[in-house]
Amino acid sequence: MSRKTGAPPGTLIFTGERKLEKTRITVIEYDQTSYSERDEEAISDCLPLKDKSTITWLNICGLHDLKVMEEIGNAFGIHPLVLEDILNVDQRSKMEDFENYVFVVMKMAYRETATSDFRIEQVSLILTPQCVITFQESEGDVFENIRKRIRESKGRMRKLGSDYLAYAIIDAVVDGYFEVLDGIAERTETLEDMLVSNPTPETLHELYRLKRDMILIRRAARPLREVIASLDRDDVNLISEGTQIYLKDVYDHTIQVIDNVESLRDMIAGMLDIYLSSVSNKMNEIMKVLTMIATIFIPLSFLAGVYGMNFSHMPELGWEFAYPLLLLGMAALATTMILYFRLKKWL
Amino acid sequence: MSRKTGAPPGTLIFTGERKLEKTRITVIEYDQTSYSERDEEAISDCLPLKDKSTITWLNICGLHDLKVMEEIGNAFGIHPLVLEDILNVDQRSKMEDFENYVFVVMKMAYRETATSDFRIEQVSLILTPQCVITFQESEGDVFENIRKRIRESKGRMRKLGSDYLAYAIIDAVVDGYFEVLDGIAERTETLEDMLVSNPTPETLHELYRLKRDMILIRRAARPLREVIASLDRDDVNLISEGTQIYLKDVYDHTIQVIDNVESLRDMIAGMLDIYLSSVSNKMNEIMKVLTMIATIFIPLSFLAGVYGMNFSHMPELGWEFAYPLLLLGMAALATTMILYFRLKKWL
Amino acid sequence: MSRKTGAPPGTLIFTGERKLEKTRITVIEYDQTSYSERDEEAISDCLPLKDKSTITWLNICGLHDLKVMEEIGNAFGIHPLVLEDILNVDQRSKMEDFENYVFVVMKMAYRETATSDFRIEQVSLILTPQCVITFQESEGDVFENIRKRIRESKGRMRKLGSDYLAYAIIDAVVDGYFEVLDGIAERTETLEDMLVSNPTPETLHELYRLKRDMILIRRAARPLREVIASLDRDDVNLISEGTQIYLKDVYDHTIQVIDNVESLRDMIAGMLDIYLSSVSNKMNEIMKVLTMIATIFIPLSFLAGVYGMNFSHMPELGWEFAYPLLLLGMAALATTMILYFRLKKWL
Amino acid sequence: MSRKTGAPPGTLIFTGERKLEKTRITVIEYDQTSYSERDEEAISDCLPLKDKSTITWLNICGLHDLKVMEEIGNAFGIHPLVLEDILNVDQRSKMEDFENYVFVVMKMAYRETATSDFRIEQVSLILTPQCVITFQESEGDVFENIRKRIRESKGRMRKLGSDYLAYAIIDAVVDGYFEVLDGIAERTETLEDMLVSNPTPETLHELYRLKRDMILIRRAARPLREVIASLDRDDVNLISEGTQIYLKDVYDHTIQVIDNVESLRDMIAGMLDIYLSSVSNKMNEIMKVLTMIATIFIPLSFLAGVYGMNFSHMPELGWEFAYPLLLLGMAALATTMILYFRLKKWL
Amino acid sequence: MSRKTGAPPGTLIFTGERKLEKTRITVIEYDQTSYSERDEEAISDCLPLKDKSTITWLNICGLHDLKVMEEIGNAFGIHPLVLEDILNVDQRSKMEDFENYVFVVMKMAYRETATSDFRIEQVSLILTPQCVITFQESEGDVFENIRKRIRESKGRMRKLGSDYLAYAIIDAVVDGYFEVLDGIAERTETLEDMLVSNPTPETLHELYRLKRDMILIRRAARPLREVIASLDRDDVNLISEGTQIYLKDVYDHTIQVIDNVESLRDMIAGMLDIYLSSVSNKMNEIMKVLTMIATIFIPLSFLAGVYGMNFSHMPELGWEFAYPLLLLGMAALATTMILYFRLKKWL
Repeated sequence: MSRKTGAPPGTLIFTGERKLEKTRITVIEYDQTSYSERDEEAISDCLPLKDKSTITWLNICGLHDLKVMEEIGNAFGIHPLVLEDILNVDQRSKMEDFENYVFVVMKMAYRETATSDFRIEQVSLILTPQCVITFQESEGDVFENIRKRIRESKGRMRKLGSDYLAYAIIDAVVDGYFEVLDGIAERTETLEDMLVSNPTPETLHELYRLKRDMILIRRAARPLREVIASLDRDDVNLISEGTQIYLKDVYDHTIQVIDNVESLRDMIAGMLDIYLSSVSNKMNEIMKVLTMIATIFIPLSFLAGVYGMNFSHMPELGWEFAYPLLLLGMAALATTMILYFRLKKWL
Repeated sequence: MSRKTGAPPGTLIFTGERKLEKTRITVIEYDQTSYSERDEEAISDCLPLKDKSTITWLNICGLHDLKVMEEIGNAFGIHPLVLEDILNVDQRSKMEDFENYVFVVMKMAYRETATSDFRIEQVSLILTPQCVITFQESEGDVFENIRKRIRESKGRMRKLGSDYLAYAIIDAVVDGYFEVLDGIAERTETLEDMLVSNPTPETLHELYRLKRDMILIRRAARPLREVIASLDRDDVNLISEGTQIYLKDVYDHTIQVIDNVESLRDMIAGMLDIYLSSVSNKMNEIMKVLTMIATIFIPLSFLAGVYGMNFSHMPELGWEFAYPLLLLGMAALATTMILYFRLKKWL
Repeated sequence: MSRKTGAPPGTLIFTGERKLEKTRITVIEYDQTSYSERDEEAISDCLPLKDKSTITWLNICGLHDLKVMEEIGNAFGIHPLVLEDILNVDQRSKMEDFENYVFVVMKMAYRETATSDFRIEQVSLILTPQCVITFQESEGDVFENIRKRIRESKGRMRKLGSDYLAYAIIDAVVDGYFEVLDGIAERTETLEDMLVSNPTPETLHELYRLKRDMILIRRAARPLREVIASLDRDDVNLISEGTQIYLKDVYDHTIQVIDNVESLRDMIAGMLDIYLSSVSNKMNEIMKVLTMIATIFIPLSFLAGVYGMNFSHMPELGWEFAYPLLLLGMAALATTMILYFRLKKWL
Repeated sequence: MSRKTGAPPGTLIFTGERKLEKTRITVIEYDQTSYSERDEEAISDCLPLKDKSTITWLNICGLHDLKVMEEIGNAFGIHPLVLEDILNVDQRSKMEDFENYVFVVMKMAYRETATSDFRIEQVSLILTPQCVITFQESEGDVFENIRKRIRESKGRMRKLGSDYLAYAIIDAVVDGYFEVLDGIAERTETLEDMLVSNPTPETLHELYRLKRDMILIRRAARPLREVIASLDRDDVNLISEGTQIYLKDVYDHTIQVIDNVESLRDMIAGMLDIYLSSVSNKMNEIMKVLTMIATIFIPLSFLAGVYGMNFSHMPELGWEFAYPLLLLGMAALATTMILYFRLKKWL
Repeated sequence: MSRKTGAPPGTLIFTGERKLEKTRITVIEYDQTSYSERDEEAISDCLPLKDKSTITWLNICGLHDLKVMEEIGNAFGIHPLVLEDILNVDQRSKMEDFENYVFVVMKMAYRETATSDFRIEQVSLILTPQCVITFQESEGDVFENIRKRIRESKGRMRKLGSDYLAYAIIDAVVDGYFEVLDGIAERTETLEDMLVSNPTPETLHELYRLKRDMILIRRAARPLREVIASLDRDDVNLISEGTQIYLKDVYDHTIQVIDNVESLRDMIAGMLDIYLSSVSNKMNEIMKVLTMIATIFIPLSFLAGVYGMNFSHMPELGWEFAYPLLLLGMAALATTMILYFRLKKWL
């Protein structure tokens, strides 16, 4: 959560962890007929693309290299406060519409392959008339399908402008949440089964982790709604009317994400009560057994203790059938108590 | 909750389970004087109806057949994003007003006959000037009464246009919730009785199921309000003023549904506390008995233990009335303790 | 909660229980100088009143007689949907302003004499320029004072029009809630005393009933606010400016009712925690006694057990003062433990 | 909470308890140069003041004397519904702006001297161009400082009009809440200490009382915000622009009062959890001791019991060192168990 | 929370604790080329600065010296109500725009060096065309970086006007919250580890302190949002358009602060449940052991007791293998019970 306090605004400081050795710059350049994809060493190599009629997608992986950021800032005329926001990876999702570019910062959530775990990472996006520049903290992302659609010229991707590419990226980010929520839903179901069959302290910790994960996801997902609504509502110049209708669609998906988040939260909230009840039910069952056995044997033991006393004058001790009679009496007493417990529905 | 991630928008993918062998296309065609009802093999057979002066209700059961969807899309000029929404059965209820048709997607809830169980299923509806097209996932629905009213020419159904038919379908969907909530209310009442008379762990699980069902119903019902409000409020061309007044009526019913949902939720929320209290009351009663018996007999057993010791010099052991005196003393001690417990209101 | 599903709109079906043998039609007719009160057999007998210059209050008790409803509908030109709403006694309170009449449906709450119990019943009201028609499910109501004021020509009742009568009826309905809440407040206070002095499982059930009653009252009372606000806010033709100021007054009362409902809810919510704490405090006190007695006597009994063993070589058994010394040692041990418990504040 | 049901509107009925023998009428009359303060017997004696150029503050203590109310109503032209509101001491705080006077009803909270207890009482205020009339239920109030400032001509009090006096009264009412909340904060702190050091059932009851007091204060304080906001926002004729700025200041104070109320509520809500945890911690500590002692001695007692049996053939009984060996074995067993408990961190 | 009740508005009374011996007046004067920093003895020495073209930052530490306040009030024409607000350190954060100055009062939160503790203190700020005057209660603050930037002429600080200085101060206040929240997050993490590994009553108290600290921080942070929003939204004359864009940035940070506060609150709220569950899990484990041992040994002890009885006619006592057989029987019984417990998953 930490930020560089007191530094003048516009100071470029990367607030995240450095996750990559080297900043990686990937360029995808395409129009309806041509397509190329390559890694570049330096931003300066990409600058000519800015004025070409093709659409360029510049993806920057790794944010620790401040020089790269400054070069981009200079080349595309980005405001220093925007650059600062890109580097501050604790940013809240937001959209800002400048004269000649649109700045969007979002939390991308993606599920790690083969597990139900997920990661939340900041993705910033700058949309200019011919380019989309995206900034990620590390390599993994939810954009593989977009790259494939560009490569294979699937759908209308290659026919439309940079705003459609920006839309596709935002759509992929929102779709990422569905996958993450699927993972959460799986964990919830597993947990539900464990709750019913055999609640352990481990169940509790998983429940707590689930709850905390939901807090993180919710915090990442909720501001998305506002971001996409303002892309749609505000009269953003760079977004054509044709793309607008797709943004409405993403907006619906965002609402759905938030809806799902809230439902899952409600379900998880209810599970703690069930856990506590299950544990206390189990405990109660054990305590009942103790109570039954103790209650039955304590009076019997007392009787045995009485006839174990060493008084010289205890006439019963001499009677011939005292012992079997006492045993019978004890059995009768125990039976009576058990019947009484049955009657009271304690057994 | 899963969705096809990264596919281009407008890609037709059915996200639900395939519940039917074959997509079933039912056509009901009527005007004030005539009426016909039949199943068709293919969409192409229905196309002539589009331009006839009669009102046509096209009901599509089963959404897995993408070809049918495409044909409808082409024939009626439906936007690909709308077709995608119809196939995505995790859609949130919504209404969209296009130039020449209105698209409504709703969650239909219906009670399964003879049980208190219910099912939630997506129903999409497209209203054009002469047709209503509905899409369901499986065969069961809440529209049987509408079919009957058309057949028997009851009410004003046959006298009015396709917008009135659309209204009737929406009304039936909303009425379905009342039946489902009736089922929930019955389950709640049964549970209440069980809570008071004999709370078991099974009661707890039923309570949890009830709670989860309410989350599902609430999530399905709440967006309906918005849908119907916007049908009424927005100046939807295809809905005549005469039908508008009926929509206000449905709107009132929707508010009532949501009201009922909230009241039931409040009641069910209160029941968990009662369950926990009931269980702990019952446990306490049992524990009290243990405590009483243990507390009375432990000191008595100690006394018996003392006179069971084998010291050579224990003068009491030789006294003639020591044994009966001790027994009397024990009885007195026990009585005193019981009276003390009574006094303290522990018994 | 049930409603007739799928029937065409405007179908007259009474959804409540039939509480009366026969629908009772009471007519009160008055102007500044004259007054008459009578029961009529049929609606047709009342029709001439419609066009007289006197003010007429038509009260219909019992809603099961559909013929009566239809006659009224025809005579006063009431829309079928309104008649349907009157018969559907699960209606949410609402106000509808038609061209020549105003329709108001409210939940009337009244306290049953001599008990703290209450009943909630639907009251519908139709206001026309010269008439007020009210519909009730059964005989009991909160209008006796209004009748008295008309009879005795108290206040301005006889001097003003039918809108003032409608206001008086609405005011009486709102005032009814104050009486019901008084009853609830009494029950709350009784319960509070029981919680402090002697919490039993019965206390818990009363608490649950109280909570459920509050849910019902809240659900009935909250929509009233909206109803009265819209009577006041909307420019309702049939309500004169002079009556408007009285409606503002009722509005304030409604706010007060809802305020009281919320405060009572807060108080009742806090009581469950107190109940649970009280019960667990009481239980803890009992458990402490068990623990003390058990903890003191278990070691003592062990010692007695040791000297009850039958080993041939137990030299202590032969010592002359072994027995009194052991007894002294036991007393010392018990005293030490009690002092230790005191020190730890466990006693 | 009770109100006179069914009486015609404007009927004067005092709904509170009669707290005073006789209604007391106090008159303070002042302008920049002169000042007088006296008690009057009847309202008629005060009437000439109405038209004098001096500012008059009429304070009525005790509301049971309906004649006084009627006289004031006639003399100052107050609407009967306003008089009814003054007498109905269960009124919600509100402001009403009439043509020639402003009516404000507020809940005054004041701390009883030397205790942390407080009282809530209704204060009504009527502001006319030259007069302020205040109505209280009983003698105590929060206005002593205002009287002193008038007497000593402190601040701008004597230089400004009746609207400034009204402001000063409202300000004193709001300031009264700060004192009451100070008392609550003291009680909260005392309670916190008790919770940590020694939670008893008495602590619980104090907590419950605190919670209930907060409900009462909150209910009294929240509507004040609206009242003062509307005095400031609505273009009230009788309030000069100079006074307006002071009202903004009172408004800020009201927000602060509500802020403090909410913070205290949050803190008190958290305390119940701490109480329950503290009690259960204490209980657990006691239970642990029982468990330890019982668990150690039960097996030992069993061993002693075994060697207390009277079988003729028990070879160990004859062995010379059996007894000391058994004692050693017992000690070893007990030590092992204690070490095991230590290991498991149960001791 | 206390305030001077009943004093006339504008009375200067310092409501905080006196934390400093002497009010300290620090002056920083700068323009693009020059810079000076000094302490002054009296306000009168600073007055010439008011009309110079340089930017002046007047920092007043210690608010108890009313004379200083009055002098500033007179020299800069500050409204008495504003001076009162500066001295009343229980003020809610707010912004007021006067004709020739802007008044902002904020709660500054800063972390005490080397600990996770924090302090909340009121900072008031008056912005005039050439000056910024800040008022603090004590010496510590979050402005050291600003002073450094002025001294070293870093960033655009020395190039821009007093509004930019005011922005920098507000920014530093908001950044202070990030540091405080970092401290809270550290404490939360430490607590989480303790909860899982070894929950003690101390953990509970730390949790309670954390909860209370969050209430304080939340109460201080939430109104900041409104303050900065209104600085940005209202057309404040003294703030130039160039500075406006930086205010938007601070606004985003404030939202982020509030977001973090809410997430931390959610996490801390969930921790109490975990604590309770952990403690009860631990307790249950102990209770289970007691139950097992008691349940196994109580029947065995009973058997030993039976054969310790002194009846003359107990044939078993004479049998040769009775003793070993009984021991075997006892072992079998114990084994059976342990297996049964295993089966029931109680062990």
